[in-house]
Amino acid sequence: MIKITLPDGNVREFKAGVTGMEIAEAISSRLAREVLSVSVNGEVWDLGRPITADALVKLYTWEEREGKETFWHTSAHLMAQAIEEFYPGTLFGIGPTVDNGFYYDIDLPGGQQLSEKELEKIEKRMMERSREKQPVVRQSISKAEAIRLFTEKGDPLKLELISELEDGTITLYSQGQFTDLCRGPHLPDTGYIKAVKLTAIAGAYWRGNEKNKMLTRVYGITFPKQKMLEEYLVMIEEAKKRDHRKIGKEMELFTFSEAVGLGLPLWLPKGAQLRGLLEDFLRKIQKNFGYDQVITPHIGDVNLYKTSGHYEKYGKDSFQVIKTPAEGEEYMLKPMNCPHHCEIYKSKPRSYKDLPVRMAEFGTVYRYEQSGELHGLTRVRGFTQDDAHIYCRPDQLKEEFKKVIDIVFIIFRALDFKDYTAQISLRDPGKPEKYIGSAENWDKAERAIVEACEEKGLQTRTELGEAAFYGPKLDFMIKDALGRNWQLGTIQVDYNLPERFQLEYIGSDDKRHRPVMIHRAPFGSLERFVAVLIEHTAGKFPLWLTPEQVVVLPISEKFNDYARKVSDELNFSDIRTVVDDRNEKIGRKIRDNELKRVPYLLVVGEKEEETGSVAVRRQGEGDKGTMTVGEFAGFIREEIKRQLTGLYN
Amino acid sequence: MIKITLPDGNVREFKAGVTGMEIAEAISSRLAREVLSVSVNGEVWDLGRPITADALVKLYTWEEREGKETFWHTSAHLMAQAIEEFYPGTLFGIGPTVDNGFYYDIDLPGGQQLSEKELEKIEKRMMERSREKQPVVRQSISKAEAIRLFTEKGDPLKLELISELEDGTITLYSQGQFTDLCRGPHLPDTGYIKAVKLTAIAGAYWRGNEKNKMLTRVYGITFPKQKMLEEYLVMIEEAKKRDHRKIGKEMELFTFSEAVGLGLPLWLPKGAQLRGLLEDFLRKIQKNFGYDQVITPHIGDVNLYKTSGHYEKYGKDSFQVIKTPAEGEEYMLKPMNCPHHCEIYKSKPRSYKDLPVRMAEFGTVYRYEQSGELHGLTRVRGFTQDDAHIYCRPDQLKEEFKKVIDIVFIIFRALDFKDYTAQISLRDPGKPEKYIGSAENWDKAERAIVEACEEKGLQTRTELGEAAFYGPKLDFMIKDALGRNWQLGTIQVDYNLPERFQLEYIGSDDKRHRPVMIHRAPFGSLERFVAVLIEHTAGKFPLWLTPEQVVVLPISEKFNDYARKVSDELNFSDIRTVVDDRNEKIGRKIRDNELKRVPYLLVVGEKEEETGSVAVRRQGEGDKGTMTVGEFAGFIREEIKRQLTGLYN
Repeated sequence: MIKITLPDGNVREFKAGVTGMEIAEAISSRLAREVLSVSVNGEVWDLGRPITADALVKLYTWEEREGKETFWHTSAHLMAQAIEEFYPGTLFGIGPTVDNGFYYDIDLPGGQQLSEKELEKIEKRMMERSREKQPVVRQSISKAEAIRLFTEKGDPLKLELISELEDGTITLYSQGQFTDLCRGPHLPDTGYIKAVKLTAIAGAYWRGNEKNKMLTRVYGITFPKQKMLEEYLVMIEEAKKRDHRKIGKEMELFTFSEAVGLGLPLWLPKGAQLRGLLEDFLRKIQKNFGYDQVITPHIGDVNLYKTSGHYEKYGKDSFQVIKTPAEGEEYMLKPMNCPHHCEIYKSKPRSYKDLPVRMAEFGTVYRYEQSGELHGLTRVRGFTQDDAHIYCRPDQLKEEFKKVIDIVFIIFRALDFKDYTAQISLRDPGKPEKYIGSAENWDKAERAIVEACEEKGLQTRTELGEAAFYGPKLDFMIKDALGRNWQLGTIQVDYNLPERFQLEYIGSDDKRHRPVMIHRAPFGSLERFVAVLIEHTAGKFPLWLTPEQVVVLPISEKFNDYARKVSDELNFSDIRTVVDDRNEKIGRKIRDNELKRVPYLLVVGEKEEETGSVAVRRQGEGDKGTMTVGEFAGFIREEIKRQLTGLYN
Repeated sequence: MIKITLPDGNVREFKAGVTGMEIAEAISSRLAREVLSVSVNGEVWDLGRPITADALVKLYTWEEREGKETFWHTSAHLMAQAIEEFYPGTLFGIGPTVDNGFYYDIDLPGGQQLSEKELEKIEKRMMERSREKQPVVRQSISKAEAIRLFTEKGDPLKLELISELEDGTITLYSQGQFTDLCRGPHLPDTGYIKAVKLTAIAGAYWRGNEKNKMLTRVYGITFPKQKMLEEYLVMIEEAKKRDHRKIGKEMELFTFSEAVGLGLPLWLPKGAQLRGLLEDFLRKIQKNFGYDQVITPHIGDVNLYKTSGHYEKYGKDSFQVIKTPAEGEEYMLKPMNCPHHCEIYKSKPRSYKDLPVRMAEFGTVYRYEQSGELHGLTRVRGFTQDDAHIYCRPDQLKEEFKKVIDIVFIIFRALDFKDYTAQISLRDPGKPEKYIGSAENWDKAERAIVEACEEKGLQTRTELGEAAFYGPKLDFMIKDALGRNWQLGTIQVDYNLPERFQLEYIGSDDKRHRPVMIHRAPFGSLERFVAVLIEHTAGKFPLWLTPEQVVVLPISEKFNDYARKVSDELNFSDIRTVVDDRNEKIGRKIRDNELKRVPYLLVVGEKEEETGSVAVRRQGEGDKGTMTVGEFAGFIREEIKRQLTGLYN
């Protein structure tokens, strides 16, 4: 018998040679229907592969990234199988999964090209082979055998790949007549794949090198249900409309300039205002929770990051060191704010009575990303973290964790994210050597996180072995209006930095102790968060957060003065109002301001001026009737109050 | 006859060979008494040196930096003369002026050392020689003669200096028996020096190289009146007490960490709050004046700064380029925000109706300074400018200038700087080739500045030839409570960057035009401004700006709860209040919080709790009687209101 440890810490006994599928069946028949692959001690395996020794086991369904990857990996093979049937002699490069689906780089025989309309034919063939439920079979072979096989097949691409593999690690996967060199894992059979859409054709150099041959890259996505594909296609259409890069441009929130540099956002006036409102909001909440704001420079001595360990992690792969013209100093753009905050902690002696010290900063950090990886505001090279570090005593951890969860809840509520989950990442109990800090402290910290989540009624998933080497953590995921998941903030316990920086406090016993650190950033970064918020709300932010809440539209120049009077009155009541006094038709002005997502449009003409009133339109909803300026101010204040009530207590 | 152009643009005719002193006499006998040196076409000369051709002439008195430098330069010679009389055979290194006075590096014969108490003896001898009014005589000599002279004297230090000079540029200055190698200029005679104080002795390696001999550096300061020396010594004592580095530490406003890097301030919670209050204040005013806030990254592509010309200015001498690990990109820490703002200007087409565009940013910039040059917050390597750039049409310049002056006035008033002056820097009319931009535009811009200052009733001094090559400017100087002058913000017109960045707007004529740019930063930088504010107020900031306005001091632990109740009530009314509930005697608590410059200290005990009142103390002033909490809130709100009334209109 062997011991199988499940992610929730439960241990079950099975006979040696048990498979992932058998473990799933032992848990529930529903899980057995849904499971797609299994991780064994951190490595993802086919469901049919025998497990022969004690292991930490995780079962993956469509809900997990790893499950989807297995599903799409087999789908790539299925597509290759269909293509090979139509075009015998096709060479296959690599066929990996991507964020949404998979691709395969292919080389059709005789220089043939694939056209978009042939994709449908391939999709149909894939579905036929799927209905046949062809088993996917794994086979280990020697390097010599592999070379022989693909030499016979006349496939120089695979031969090149094989030449770089180590003997003893090479596997083939086959279904029906199709065989591919592949590390796996794969689905048990092709029947899991119930819906397919081949989405695009592109050119791609073999191995990304422009000196090599240009291959054809075919993209696709598949699902375990036809309905999921339909929903996906609708979602894709909607996502295009909500693309934060498109809306950011329409609303004039941010821009990029190649002259400044790739991945370095320039926040335009309205975007800077939005960011300011978010920062003010968080600053106010954090003040209520006892945080102190600090401000630290955007560079630091290289040795600071050697002390912190960040140089080892980012040094070579991020922006390179900044030398000085004299004195031989070396600086780095800061990849994180924590080393600076540790130096502030050290700037004076701390007593147990002073803890927790909660240090917050909207700190802009810089990390190099390859230009091909950059994407709008979600993947940038410079971003501002809503960062804070809590230095506390071990006995304060749970209370501090609960308070951070409270802050996250307030933020989600204020920003209308109703659907979120959290993941607790704990140690791999079988590998204590992987972690720094005493077992006692780890126990304490893990218990603190689990209990804090329970006491706050937070729905969580617990993952063993997912903790960082320096401490356990809690991650938040939100589901946006299109059902897409976004990883946001993290709450991370850290025993490492206090050790590296030799942080101390004097305890009630008059002795020196080491504080525990919590890193936390509920938004993650303001850039990423604004991107998510735009895509979640399609640019229709909660009223309290909208840079321009009201625009006054005079129907002709004659009413510009009255429009300005209305605007001044509203601004005086802290309602952010502008006037659109362009010399344009009223219809055009309404359209332009609807596109800018201004929530309230006040049309004013002769009647309104005479009666001191405004004709109110809600963006996307149309006419809301006529009100006096005072009534409208009260009306909009009520709406904001409803959104914010109770948040600042 | 030759034409002498004075700084105010007046031209007078004199016979060729006229001296600076004769020009001063022709202007007024008072000026002749006060003048110390003269600049001739930008070079500072002795007052007795003949001027033989048309020239731009500026006369310097004690009021000008250049006048003081001449005065102190002669004083250094006078000190050397006295030392040589006591210690014949002394070798003299260099003897330059510094911010306050001068020093001379000397090498006493036979390895003798100078002691502090001998300084008095030297001071006395200096005053004797001063009373003799010894004329200071300038003499040009050939390099060969100079070498012969100092070889004879046996002075290897001067010989080393001479070896690096070009023949034909070497001059000697002598008074009495003392002769020194010197470029000048000097006072007409030693009699100008009426008061002397030798302030310190230090060691200094010859030419700053630690491989060379250690010389003795003697520091001193002199004045044209005995009373000025007395005032200076009092001021120095007071300045020590007000040193912003000392007060910054006492108030826990900022700190530095060698591990982070020299000259990179870390703003502690109270400092960050102070900075935030200043930023909010300025942001609010700027919003009223139609500014838009933007946010841009702290780095930019090197080519951006090649376009702007900043690479040429800062490239080699500032922080070096930041390379990327791949793709061969090169970035720079931004030394200025303007290139980024120009890119934002270019991010969409602009019409004449859109101008002026006023773009503001609290932008943190980085410029390398040698570590020896760094000083607290006044000389740092990273600082945050209260920066803005106004892009306007040429016809809008004057109006925009007036508005910026208004903002500066509001700031000075809010921060209690009552004594300030401004300098208008215009072209050198004789050298049009030095400037870019059309003469017509320059005329327009210079007229705009002069008229704007007149219309605003601003006291100004006009300097010809002091404009930057790209435009005229206006600089503000403030006098602090100790009478020290501080250069603060600048308003700079710029024709260069719009040209370099090819900025455009479509005019009412439907043609492309180039906008004019105004750079402006009323504080200069937040770091420098906070330093000045601390030294001006000795840390007693205006109440509205004080991070902690009130501290509640319970006389014993029994009253901690009541203290917190009072604090909550005041905080709820937006009065920034903390509680000092440390287990310390009330006398100690009062002392500690006085040192932290908390403006109001509220002592609470049994009597106060019973009557819902507080015993009010004003920092530095003592008891103000007992009030109810409500009365106190009203009282403090009144004080803040008085400080801010009218500022935001």
